Amino acid sequence: MPVTPDPARRGLSRRGLLSLAGAGVLGAGAGFSLDRVLTPEASASGAAPTYPFFAKHQSGIITPAQDRLHFAAFDVSDITAGELEELLQDWTYAASRMTAGDGAGAYGPASGPYDAPPDDTGEALGLPPSGLTITFGFGPSLFDNRFGLASKRPSALIELPSFPGDALIPTLVGGDLCIQACSDDPQVAVHAIRNLSRIAFGRASLRWSQLGFGRTSSTTRAQSTPRNLFGFKDGTANMRAEDTSIVNREVWASAEDGAGWMAGGSYVVTRKIRMTIETWDRTSLREQERVVGRTKGEGAPLSGGTEFTAPDFSVAGREDAPLIDTAAHVRLAHPDQNRGNSILRRGYNFVDGNDDLGRLNAGLFFICFQRDPATQFVPLQLNLAKNDAMNEYLRHVGSGIFAVPPGAAEGSYVGAGLFA
Amino acid sequence: MPVTPDPARRGLSRRGLLSLAGAGVLGAGAGFSLDRVLTPEASASGAAPTYPFFAKHQSGIITPAQDRLHFAAFDVSDITAGELEELLQDWTYAASRMTAGDGAGAYGPASGPYDAPPDDTGEALGLPPSGLTITFGFGPSLFDNRFGLASKRPSALIELPSFPGDALIPTLVGGDLCIQACSDDPQVAVHAIRNLSRIAFGRASLRWSQLGFGRTSSTTRAQSTPRNLFGFKDGTANMRAEDTSIVNREVWASAEDGAGWMAGGSYVVTRKIRMTIETWDRTSLREQERVVGRTKGEGAPLSGGTEFTAPDFSVAGREDAPLIDTAAHVRLAHPDQNRGNSILRRGYNFVDGNDDLGRLNAGLFFICFQRDPATQFVPLQLNLAKNDAMNEYLRHVGSGIFAVPPGAAEGSYVGAGLFA
Repeated sequence: MPVTPDPARRGLSRRGLLSLAGAGVLGAGAGFSLDRVLTPEASASGAAPTYPFFAKHQSGIITPAQDRLHFAAFDVSDITAGELEELLQDWTYAASRMTAGDGAGAYGPASGPYDAPPDDTGEALGLPPSGLTITFGFGPSLFDNRFGLASKRPSALIELPSFPGDALIPTLVGGDLCIQACSDDPQVAVHAIRNLSRIAFGRASLRWSQLGFGRTSSTTRAQSTPRNLFGFKDGTANMRAEDTSIVNREVWASAEDGAGWMAGGSYVVTRKIRMTIETWDRTSLREQERVVGRTKGEGAPLSGGTEFTAPDFSVAGREDAPLIDTAAHVRLAHPDQNRGNSILRRGYNFVDGNDDLGRLNAGLFFICFQRDPATQFVPLQLNLAKNDAMNEYLRHVGSGIFAVPPGAAEGSYVGAGLFA
Repeated sequence: MPVTPDPARRGLSRRGLLSLAGAGVLGAGAGFSLDRVLTPEASASGAAPTYPFFAKHQSGIITPAQDRLHFAAFDVSDITAGELEELLQDWTYAASRMTAGDGAGAYGPASGPYDAPPDDTGEALGLPPSGLTITFGFGPSLFDNRFGLASKRPSALIELPSFPGDALIPTLVGGDLCIQACSDDPQVAVHAIRNLSRIAFGRASLRWSQLGFGRTSSTTRAQSTPRNLFGFKDGTANMRAEDTSIVNREVWASAEDGAGWMAGGSYVVTRKIRMTIETWDRTSLREQERVVGRTKGEGAPLSGGTEFTAPDFSVAGREDAPLIDTAAHVRLAHPDQNRGNSILRRGYNFVDGNDDLGRLNAGLFFICFQRDPATQFVPLQLNLAKNDAMNEYLRHVGSGIFAVPPGAAEGSYVGAGLFA
């Protein structure tokens, strides 16, 4: 970000945003380029990609999964629908600046040179955005009676059912609003959430939040497969942004789905999954590979081949037992075992210190995007929760579901369709 | 790290270590190269530095501060002195492997191909070490009556006094042992602490631990100055590894200091400092700069110049008030105001989710190395705790002090001097 203060010292907020709108660039028919979604703009150094904020879809979904995450869920305060709309405008303005590598506002104050708080907190001054994306979502509770939005609630935005074995902690569940900030530089992701939280002061407050230090999925073919904290490659079979027809069918909401304002949007489910890694670490390699259904080193399915060989669930070994156990995670999670339905996974490894027993509070912050959680995530998770051999080493402690609206046109703001 | 299992499937632990020792490479007179401490070995890709584990000083002190941190403090279980010695041997063996880019052990099990737990947890398989350093320390409590080490306690390893305003949380204070893992890749740092914790099972358990996502100090001249979560550049005046005479005088313990086994070692003080960033963010830029004593953008002292201009504490402005406030952090922390004593700072920004009031649980995990905490950190912190204008926005919640022994010679182990 430029270190020079903005000479105009323009404030954050809708003042800037509405001046854009006043300039007549409301972009409903502006003709988005799909290429821009996947192709970062080269930076001067060539090292720090920048993704456009204003686009047909919000970035941070099929964007190549960045290395680091800061995710936050918010409760909206006792404000009016108009004030909620202004918050979304202010957030859009700040997010569009930050994803471009600028501060949330000028780091100097809006109202004078020194006697007001800065409009940016400063810790990302001088840092490139490192692929920063900021993705906004709306929880089911936003559509209650408070803001007159009940009629806008998409039918796909269900409340998640209770799953067998759930050990949810109420303070880690739900939220009226969510923001996902991803960047290859964690300081940039933290800076984004911190400033958006600051901007929301008095209007919305953090309900829960989560840092993730390592991605556990690839979302494009160019990315190598990362490893989760079980030490196994994760997301080998994840859909990729290049699979356009699958992405269009499984990820993006359409006007025909019911809520027209969600066309081009998606639905995100988050699960904070604590792994009992100390128990896992004392388990034999044979058992670990049986649970996962893949080899630990190469990540090949136990039915043979290499990482990207399709698993063959019918191959039997000794005593006619299937080489891939009937309770193996790879079998139960595979689209072939889920009527072809799949989800776009985008999770992150986390470690939040340790508990009183000296065990690392570690695990997977699971994130997935899909068109219809009721037919995609829910049956998959029901199947896993009932049958997955991995459950012995997992505990779901947090949960969220949010409607992720389409991207904003230039001059407009994320979620404008809610108020149209 | 190589993905191919070690064909010998050699276990972790002293078995491997002692075979090194048996091979006659005990390196007491091996002639360490000081250059190796500062100059990483080039990797095949040229992108992932590797620092040698066996060296005169432990790495991770004057090593160029890596971007990410995982720090852990341990309580030793009810074991014998001999078992403690074995733990240090096992840790040394695993650390020497991991800093070289190998697993803690082969990822396959030691005792057979599949029917024992792996000797490495796997999440860093295929990742370069990215400058990984692993630094071990001993807390004052290690020198109580349990292990017969009381006579070995260095006089410099004091208990820290209570400082005015301390708000320490007992579970975030102290520890018999500590490990600092730094790497430019957080997954590599987490992998190191996780495996060393696993190896300690039954012998030592985590007391507290801390992830840091962004360094707040430079330790070499080649590094740019990072920013803390107040949004200001931090560590501009930090000593640098190149200041050899200062480092020798202020950082490294000498045989003349009393405890001969600590010669070439150092003493680390850690403080978990929670920042009330929401309050800070609503403070005027004028007040922020007054508190820090530097400009927010450039980081120049308020007495004038640019970032690296020495602050002039005597320059007065309007009404003869000093341009750098008498309570400004830069004034109170400056060596010129502390009888020339200085410390080598090596801290990290942290965010641990948020509290029940919706405030980010954020701040600085302060780390400093010095030769004598009683004359370096303690008077400095007493001065700051009494007078620093920044205290209004800070709360010290965690604290630790550890003797950091010299580096191990090849074939030996970290802390061998304790048992000699």
